[in-house]
Formats: sequence, structure tokens, C-alpha cells
Amino acid sequence: MKLQVTQENLNRALGSVARVANTRNTLPILANVLVKTSNNRLSLSATNLDIAITHYIGAKVSTEGSITVPARLMQDFISSLPSGVINLDLEETKLKIKTDQYQSTVNGIAADDFPVMPAITGGESWTVPAQVFKKGLQQVVFAASSDETRPVLTAVLLHSSEGNLYLAATDSYRLAERKIGANNSQIKLLIPATAMQDLLRILGDTTSDVQVTHDEQQVLFQVGDVELVTRLVDGKYPDYPKLIPASFATEATLKRADLVNVTKVSSLFARESAGSVTIEVNEESQTLSIRSIASQLGENTAQASAKVTGSGSITLNSKYLLDGLNALSGDEVTFGFNGKLEATLLRDPTSDDYKHIIMPLKG
Amino acid sequence: MKLQVTQENLNRALGSVARVANTRNTLPILANVLVKTSNNRLSLSATNLDIAITHYIGAKVSTEGSITVPARLMQDFISSLPSGVINLDLEETKLKIKTDQYQSTVNGIAADDFPVMPAITGGESWTVPAQVFKKGLQQVVFAASSDETRPVLTAVLLHSSEGNLYLAATDSYRLAERKIGANNSQIKLLIPATAMQDLLRILGDTTSDVQVTHDEQQVLFQVGDVELVTRLVDGKYPDYPKLIPASFATEATLKRADLVNVTKVSSLFARESAGSVTIEVNEESQTLSIRSIASQLGENTAQASAKVTGSGSITLNSKYLLDGLNALSGDEVTFGFNGKLEATLLRDPTSDDYKHIIMPLKG
Repeated sequence: MKLQVTQENLNRALGSVARVANTRNTLPILANVLVKTSNNRLSLSATNLDIAITHYIGAKVSTEGSITVPARLMQDFISSLPSGVINLDLEETKLKIKTDQYQSTVNGIAADDFPVMPAITGGESWTVPAQVFKKGLQQVVFAASSDETRPVLTAVLLHSSEGNLYLAATDSYRLAERKIGANNSQIKLLIPATAMQDLLRILGDTTSDVQVTHDEQQVLFQVGDVELVTRLVDGKYPDYPKLIPASFATEATLKRADLVNVTKVSSLFARESAGSVTIEVNEESQTLSIRSIASQLGENTAQASAKVTGSGSITLNSKYLLDGLNALSGDEVTFGFNGKLEATLLRDPTSDDYKHIIMPLKG
Repeated sequence: MKLQVTQENLNRALGSVARVANTRNTLPILANVLVKTSNNRLSLSATNLDIAITHYIGAKVSTEGSITVPARLMQDFISSLPSGVINLDLEETKLKIKTDQYQSTVNGIAADDFPVMPAITGGESWTVPAQVFKKGLQQVVFAASSDETRPVLTAVLLHSSEGNLYLAATDSYRLAERKIGANNSQIKLLIPATAMQDLLRILGDTTSDVQVTHDEQQVLFQVGDVELVTRLVDGKYPDYPKLIPASFATEATLKRADLVNVTKVSSLFARESAGSVTIEVNEESQTLSIRSIASQLGENTAQASAKVTGSGSITLNSKYLLDGLNALSGDEVTFGFNGKLEATLLRDPTSDDYKHIIMPLKG
């Protein structure tokens, strides 16, 4: 293998793929990135066996070939080089990297041993605008569980229903759902939330479409010159739409920034009680107040004015409340619930595209 | 105690002192900050028994008094409040904190139990411009040791010699010395480097002078409304000036940014050899080259052009080299040494105010 690439392109490609490579894995080659020529392009790939990312860049190829090299060293090294032309020259398993100022030899492992994900065959394919998909993912992905004992909850559900496409995630304590557009196919994909975090990174500021291709086992996302393949999670996802309350005995609408502030301050006093805060909505005074009691340190009550119908109180985890408030984007938020034991719904009063549910704590 | 302060002032004062309070200490009151009225001022103090910081702010005091309250909670809480007036009202050991929107009760510990550092009596006093002192400290403090087995090396030496005032620090592997102005007193203070880190924070952008007052055991720094007292380190500091080489068999002068870049890149390949890199200065080719050999990963050589007198090579720890280069501030750096076994000196070719020495590794 012998070729020339620009530092800018090589650096960008390593930035896309290197994070998936992992030195903590038992297979040493999984800490490496696969560098491979194909016609006048160079592909860089990394995998952790669950997901694989490949980034294609332009290159001036003199001799075809391939090798795997330590991902972290390559990324740190190439990102430190000045912009300009880099010469790559493979001698057995040693990759020589040359610029005007630098001459390096990086010891590689033969490409034959690099694991390749199986190809997606006979799958369905459709597209969605990258930025719509990105915004939707950001609003739901954090609600997925990181507890591997219930694998389905570690996934983001991408599914169609009545002509619309939805993203949803829940860890059983809170649930987020976002409508991301119209789609008439029958889609129901359980995609690992960790793979969606990698996809978010790749989506960046791309203004193009994401092409989604899937079969029973895998899904492929194509964004510009980057491909991400991930295995799907197996299992039955909870029938979550029935958990979303449709009407509310108590509802308060207020400035989202106000609720964020009073929740933040109250959460400081709730460290000893695992973040537990009690929200009281008062129709008579048209206020929402939030109260924390921390026996050791002290206590706090904070108040904000709100448009209220129906009085009531509910105890929530302040961290979940802040996560939900930060995922919303409107100026105002509507906070609704039915008694102390049922789920609270957060939503933008001007839009029904995003719903965020939080289960109460026993107050 | 009953008073009014502004959120801005209280927040600024907590920012100065709270970091010294420590929850890991065995004395619970050391995690607290002392809040105390004196005439129409409020003082906030924290101590770890080695150092104490006090910040004075204006306040509208109705009833005098004092209390200690958890530093971290206070800082997080006050910094989250909107700007404006805050009412403080002490009831027994409960500090009530009220604004328009928030009502908090913070549980305190009586001020009588708060340890106070002994006063400096009959000490000498002089001043130095805050920004000169700050810049000088930044250039030497990182070279102090963190190894408590040789306490003198954990100090920064502030001393006078032949009418000049110097800051110096060494961990026995590298040494930094900075001239910070003229002073005809006899000064020799060993100040804990950790206290100097706190002082750096306090100096901030202050354009005024620092007033320094010291006796045999302690030194007090006064900067505007803030006071920092620290105990001095006991012991005999190495006679370091004799370690600074005066002439060089090999000298290279080059762009400081160039040497930073080639050192950074080479250090990536030197992770397995504890950062060891070999620098080769060549008079014939007028170049400085830097080489790292990492058996597992690979190796790297990088080159920069330089004005060279005398060829030679020396092996250094790349981390120390980068620290030294980053502490210098000129466009160019002069790198001088005498053979493989003696110290290397880094300096600005246009100024003799700052000297940085690095001991070689066995190549």
C-alpha cells in the first residue's frame, strides 16, 4: 500500500471512527483502525463487534493495500500534524507515515484478522433529514437505560405508527417520545442507545439526508461519506403509548427557564434524599412551588408564577425533571399530572411532537 | 445576625474562599465557611489549618453575629440565585436565606469552634505588583514537587539576592527561577506551592499591588479585599543557583511553537518509555531533531530548523520539556546543554528574567 492523503481528510476520518475502537477489549485488533484502499479512495473503519463505522476519503493511491494500526495513537498523531500532504507507505506490517517535518513508523496488525460485520441483504431503505433525526435523537436517547439486565430498555425504539415515524426511549422511570416525520412503511427497530450516541457525533452539522437500511438483524445509517452499522436489540418493547396520560387533574404552564432555575436550586438541597423534590401547584395563588428537605444540610422552597388549573402536589427525582426540561425547546412548558401516584407529563404547550413522562417517587 | 448583601458580592466572596474548605477533613467544621459581621462589612473565611482565606464584602448589617455553614452547599446555592438582594437571618444555628423567589434554611455549626490562624506579629511588610507576581508564580509553581517526603521541595522559594527578588521551585528533576523585581530587604520564604495555587486564583485580573507581610512562621498576602495566610515550610532549600549552567557546548535557538509541536508529536510515541525523547542538535544542518522509540507502537522522528552552535544530543522527559516550553513566553527559545549527563537550560534569547532547567534521562 502506498498513497497520499491530506492531513485534513485523514484527521476527519479518524475523528469519525476511532472512538469505536477500544483498548479494553480482549481482542487486541479491536483497538485498531482498518486502513484500506479501494480505487482512488481510502476507507478507515473501526468496530467493537456491536457497531462498525467506516469513513471514506479521497486519496492518491499508487499501490493498493490494507493494514490495521492503533486507533488512539493514529488519531492523536495525525491530529497533531500540520495541515498538508501525508505520505503513507506500508512495508510488511509497518506503516511509514511521512510529511516534510515528520517521519514515523507505526506497527500494525494484518488486515485479514480484522472482523467485518455481515452485509445487510434484501433490506428496506428510506431517508430522513439529518438534522431532524439528530434533534429527535437528542431529545430521547438520554432516557434509555444503561442497565444491561433488561436489554430492550438500553435501545432507542424507531418505529412507525399511523403514517408517522417516532423515536422513543425509556428506562422505566421516565419516557421520551418524539415524532420525526411521515413514513408509511412498517418500521420497528430496536437500536442500541450507545450506537445512537455515535450516530449523533457523526451527524454533526450535516444538512443532507440520512439513508437508513435495515434487515432483521442490523441497521445501516449512511451520512455523506460515513457509514454506521449496528446490530439490533432482540426482544419485545413495552407498549409505551398506553403509559402516556391523555388528560390531567392538575396542569401548570410556566416559563421553562423559570422551572429549570427553581429545580436546579432545590436539587442542591436534595442531595441527601437522592434528588427527591416535591412540586406543589396551587390554582388559587397561580403558582408552582418546589420544596426539598435535607435533614443534615437544611431545606429550600422556591416559587414561580404559572397559569394553573387544578391544585395538587407530586414528588419527583429532580435530575429526571431537569433532563426532561432540557430536552424541551420551547419558551414555555406545561407540567401535568393526576394525583401523587401517576406519571407526570412535560410538553411544549405549542407543539405535540415531543412528550416527556416522569414516574413519581413516593413522597 | 441579620443583614442584607447582594448576590454578586456574596457569590464573589464564596468563590474566593470556598475551595479551601474540605469535606474530606476529619474536623467537620473545616468543610464550613465562617460568615461574620464586623461593622458594615461581612467577612467570609475558610481554612484547612495550613492556609486560611478571608474575603470582606460590603453589607447592610442590622444585627451583628457569626455562624459557619457548609461551604460547598453555600457556594452552589448562592451562585444559582439570580442577582439582587439576599437577606441573611440567623436563628440559633440555622441560617435563613431569603430572596423574592427562594426561602432556604441552612444548618450551621457555631462560629466559636472555627479554628483561627495565629496573627502575624512584628512582621516585615512590602508590596509587589499583582500581575508581575502572578506571571512569575505561573512560570515556577508547577516545577515544585508534590512528594511530601521532602517537604522543602513542595514549597516555592521567594527570596532576595543582590537587590533583586526571585521566585524559584524545583522537584529535583527540573527547576524554574523567575526574577520579579528589585527588593533590598533580606527575604527567604518557603511558601507551600498549594497555597500559591490558591493565591493565583485570588490574584485573577487585579491590577493593584499585593501586600506581603511575614514573620518566622507565616506569610500573609493582601490583595484588595482578600487575605490569604499560610504557614511557611520549615527546612533548608537546596543552593539551586549553582545548578544553573553558565555556558554551553551545544546551543540551538528556534521558534518556540516549532519546538512545542515536534515535542508534542514525539511524546505520543514515547508513552511506553515514560515520555523519554532524544533531542539531537546538528550544527552542520542547522537543525534540531527529536526522536522517540516505542517498541510496541512504533517510532517517530521530527525536525525543525534552528540557529545552532555545537552539535550534541541529550535525552529528556518530554512532559518536562513541554512544561518548560509552555512557561516561557517569547517567540523564540534557546535550548542549551553540555553533554548527555548535565542539565539542559531553556530560556528566552531576548531576556534573562526566566530560567528553566531540566535534568537529563539516561539515554
